[in-house]
Amino acid sequence: MHLLEQRILRDGKVLEGNVLKVDGFLNHCIDPAFSLEMGKEFYRLYKDSGVNKILTIEASGIGLACMTGLVFNCSVLFAKKRASKNISNDVYCYEIPSYTHGNTNTVVVSREYLGPEDRVLILDDFLATGAALDGLIHIALQAKSTVVGCGVAIEKAFQDGGERIRRQGYRVESLARISFMSPQEIRFAPD
Amino acid sequence: MHLLEQRILRDGKVLEGNVLKVDGFLNHCIDPAFSLEMGKEFYRLYKDSGVNKILTIEASGIGLACMTGLVFNCSVLFAKKRASKNISNDVYCYEIPSYTHGNTNTVVVSREYLGPEDRVLILDDFLATGAALDGLIHIALQAKSTVVGCGVAIEKAFQDGGERIRRQGYRVESLARISFMSPQEIRFAPD
Repeated sequence: MHLLEQRILRDGKVLEGNVLKVDGFLNHCIDPAFSLEMGKEFYRLYKDSGVNKILTIEASGIGLACMTGLVFNCSVLFAKKRASKNISNDVYCYEIPSYTHGNTNTVVVSREYLGPEDRVLILDDFLATGAALDGLIHIALQAKSTVVGCGVAIEKAFQDGGERIRRQGYRVESLARISFMSPQEIRFAPD
Repeated sequence: MHLLEQRILRDGKVLEGNVLKVDGFLNHCIDPAFSLEMGKEFYRLYKDSGVNKILTIEASGIGLACMTGLVFNCSVLFAKKRASKNISNDVYCYEIPSYTHGNTNTVVVSREYLGPEDRVLILDDFLATGAALDGLIHIALQAKSTVVGCGVAIEKAFQDGGERIRRQGYRVESLARISFMSPQEIRFAPD
């Protein structure tokens, strides 16, 4: 998505430790109109897949997922992070290691809102190691939902998460794929 | 907002401990089109206040805030919860006690995205003790922003948070004000 690449080049900053800081429009300060444009792009990509539910994880994915849900006219379910492992029986849960924070999160989704009738588009802001998408896919599988695919705003294509998940047979669409980044330069993979 | 009251009566459940469960449309599974209607209502209430930024707190407020930001055509900033008190100098921070989880969260907002030029509408899904709004107001004051007011989807008017914040001189608009609730009955305060 050319607009997103331009926005990353304009507003993104590459910090130490392979961190791309895009919190000025994506994951701290959100530009809702721009998020809606990204939602429209996910709709263009997945409009023929019968999506009836969007699944994401708190917190950074929620804005993008809500805008995309508005375009698809479907509900948006976000997995919640719990410190506690004391989880009740009425939720699906999965342990996700957090690349950013160096710990593990138990994420939970209420069984009430996800089931075999759902055709799920899984969304997140970033794809790097793929840990969050792995967790969301596992939760959708626990619910016996159909995973129609995944969508992320920014894929760090120099890390292996995207390729690993694609090799498992899942469709993964990234609106911008970064092939290389350094404090001086950001390069995108060709479409 | 009549539509919200009807939705609460239809989908809400009152659990032990004064918990109103509305996670089927508001704070776990989100109905984006309905959130947009709530955003339009906040716009009707605050359209003459020169709002140029919406401030909320992760995670449940983000969906509502993004939809409202779309209507106002302004950016949406969400305060992040941090377990650590090891906070850098480039953020505003505040300690917020969590009613739901019985602990304390340090919430932070990057100084980069909030300042004296901002006229801030503070949004959240729930208002009960007012602890989250207190925290967001303090963060806006640290930034020397103007707080034009607060907006919440659901106010538990039988708790004191709303009145306390109004007595401090802040405008607080709630789309539904619950005056009484029990597992058998939910009553709303008159407008």
